[in-house]
Amino acid sequence: MHRKTQTRLPDTTGLAIRDITITPIAIVDPPLLNAGGLHAPYALRTIVELVTEDNITGISEIPGNDGINAALESARDLVAGRDVFQLNGIRRILEDHFGKESASQRGDAPWDQRKLIHIFSAIEVACMDIIGKATGRPVVDLLGGMMRERVPFAAYLFYKYEGAGGKLGFDTDPQVRGWAAARQAAALDPDGIVDQARSMCETFGFQSIKLKGGVFEPGVEVDSIVALRKAFGPGVPLRLDPNALWKAETAIEHGGKLESLLEYLEDPVRGQENMAKVREALSVPLATNMCTTSFEEIPQSIALGSEDIILSDHHFWGGLRASMELSRICETFGRDLSMHSNSHLGISLAAMVHLGAALPQLSYALDTHYPWQSDEVITRGRFSFDDGAVEVLREPGLGVELDRDALARLHRNYLESGLTRRDDETEMQKVVPGWKFEPVRW
Amino acid sequence: MHRKTQTRLPDTTGLAIRDITITPIAIVDPPLLNAGGLHAPYALRTIVELVTEDNITGISEIPGNDGINAALESARDLVAGRDVFQLNGIRRILEDHFGKESASQRGDAPWDQRKLIHIFSAIEVACMDIIGKATGRPVVDLLGGMMRERVPFAAYLFYKYEGAGGKLGFDTDPQVRGWAAARQAAALDPDGIVDQARSMCETFGFQSIKLKGGVFEPGVEVDSIVALRKAFGPGVPLRLDPNALWKAETAIEHGGKLESLLEYLEDPVRGQENMAKVREALSVPLATNMCTTSFEEIPQSIALGSEDIILSDHHFWGGLRASMELSRICETFGRDLSMHSNSHLGISLAAMVHLGAALPQLSYALDTHYPWQSDEVITRGRFSFDDGAVEVLREPGLGVELDRDALARLHRNYLESGLTRRDDETEMQKVVPGWKFEPVRW
Repeated sequence: MHRKTQTRLPDTTGLAIRDITITPIAIVDPPLLNAGGLHAPYALRTIVELVTEDNITGISEIPGNDGINAALESARDLVAGRDVFQLNGIRRILEDHFGKESASQRGDAPWDQRKLIHIFSAIEVACMDIIGKATGRPVVDLLGGMMRERVPFAAYLFYKYEGAGGKLGFDTDPQVRGWAAARQAAALDPDGIVDQARSMCETFGFQSIKLKGGVFEPGVEVDSIVALRKAFGPGVPLRLDPNALWKAETAIEHGGKLESLLEYLEDPVRGQENMAKVREALSVPLATNMCTTSFEEIPQSIALGSEDIILSDHHFWGGLRASMELSRICETFGRDLSMHSNSHLGISLAAMVHLGAALPQLSYALDTHYPWQSDEVITRGRFSFDDGAVEVLREPGLGVELDRDALARLHRNYLESGLTRRDDETEMQKVVPGWKFEPVRW
Repeated sequence: MHRKTQTRLPDTTGLAIRDITITPIAIVDPPLLNAGGLHAPYALRTIVELVTEDNITGISEIPGNDGINAALESARDLVAGRDVFQLNGIRRILEDHFGKESASQRGDAPWDQRKLIHIFSAIEVACMDIIGKATGRPVVDLLGGMMRERVPFAAYLFYKYEGAGGKLGFDTDPQVRGWAAARQAAALDPDGIVDQARSMCETFGFQSIKLKGGVFEPGVEVDSIVALRKAFGPGVPLRLDPNALWKAETAIEHGGKLESLLEYLEDPVRGQENMAKVREALSVPLATNMCTTSFEEIPQSIALGSEDIILSDHHFWGGLRASMELSRICETFGRDLSMHSNSHLGISLAAMVHLGAALPQLSYALDTHYPWQSDEVITRGRFSFDDGAVEVLREPGLGVELDRDALARLHRNYLESGLTRRDDETEMQKVVPGWKFEPVRW
């Protein structure tokens, strides 16, 4: 009885997309340890630039790899000629072309490997940048306006080997230089983590701390949280993210020891059923960016009660408007929403800040890898953190512009690096021969 | 552990709201029968007009009554001076002022009696009108763009007494004149309903039909549906809306007879639990605008599985953006979304069409009372339906402008009518002395 109505986009206007430029870049990344292995000396990002018939430029940044880049290329003709306001229609056209992506295509790695959602996010953010410029409004205003002028972030700690990554990196950012020694140093035990945290918090003013876990056996990571609590006291909220590497019984045992210490426990286990089991057993809130990662998975998350906080990421929830819709879903079902991050530069950060400023509810400081990066691809240079927060830009659009020299340099990095996709396992094997990723380790 | 961040709206711009004009109007309304009694000769609407510092005007239309109008007046100082883009902040400010409204404040009547949601909707739609004008874009584009160029509506049939309502009404609209005789005629049995449907569908080209029920005992209403099916055949989807007046066993008995005849059955019973019971028993889809009427009620609706289709109404779901968010919720949970209506004029219709055009999914033709009205308050005159659909306006904003003479005339109607709120029970008692509204009748 359902009658389908056909998608027909209106005729293009001066805001039709004329040119699409897709530039893969490699940015310096330190040897950070995580459940998937070890960060390579460069992290891959892809910069998308749209130009309208009226010569307005919009930009975006997404996690890059050869698959995503090829898919972006294949979407070029579908997107060219479209009016930047027709985002509902562009989403439908891309879905029709690529087919709906299932949540399982995310993959087992800590990072998301879906194509369609990354591509749509890249197009959406760049279109929002153009809409903002065309209307004289910052992106936050296109999302319903500013609920806060400064968006708080958390210190993001990593176990790491010595080194700051890359070969061509240069620290021009005073904030990065401020913690250059700690950023360079190894951190392979609780003392190393506390030193890293002290330097990072002192330099950037962060007022919450997240430790990326899933690296050492759980007791060591619990000890690191205990050490952080001892060093920072109860006034600084702490989080631990074992990246889904623990069994449910491990999470219940070790999570139990952390209940009074953590603001939330992130992805202790793999899968919504296991999360629900752990949530039932523990009183500490659970957060996820691995177990509930798409609208498709929300119904089961709600039915099982598998988490308290969704760590959204506009790069793989379908852009900024979709993230506002996710926020409404979280509000409706009594969940909180905060944000996940990958290694990234300032275009992604600007988008995260606009979204973070527009969210009606924001109870937790957002994640960002930004202090670990030293490169930048925007003309304003690197963003500063003040008391751990980033001020929302008031310029039209995202408020950031491409630095073409930097873009060219980072693209050369990409070509010279020989990297085509994130592969933390291979990188880890260079240090620990025979190391294998295991979806559940302890 | 949650740290609250304070709401601070940015400094105002040229798009700050300078003037707010609130004008109650009374529009001619025929003596339509419904579960709450009988429509009075006039339906009350309230027209809200915002003017920015730069002299851009935005308008909206909501169901009016003295309570809503007084609340709107009391919100005046909270809204004045705000930038029209800051809708997230304005919502928060109104919520803080009025306190969050509970779903129970909706009331038992078929129409919604909450204040805050109506007020916010009035402000939001008028602000979206201004944003559209300031940016040169139709409202549909502010909602992510156009998924369809024409928005389909359904014929909305009523049992009714003879008469066309009002004292000052005049039918200048050729479409209204086209069915003037049928609009004037009584329709108190299946034959009357079929005649009404024939005239309405012939005049407006509607391709689906809804019958407002909850008026006669269920067997009579079932007979009307059977008669409609006989007259129109299986190619025209039919709906029946008993306005929550049936007991669950009544709904299961009579709904069972209708299963092969209805596209959906709307609010057969009162409350989500009863809806779930009926849904369990019947295979015909259930729709609601009385049992799940707010985001607050969504979780229980999902848990119980109480309906298949939410009949949204931007006037009381918190505006157009909130309706897009509701649409995402419906998509996420495998529900459909369509639209409810009250007696209304073209400002509401324009907003419904922009929203209907932006919805990513639209499987059912929307409800509208519009053919029952003869008045209009906009300069373009009354909207035309072509094959039952309304073409989306391409002008900036809503695309409609206030006709000030008409507004003055309809405001005089309001003053002369002496009506202050919708009271279908009192109106019914003029015809059937001692008639009483019963929340559940059969």
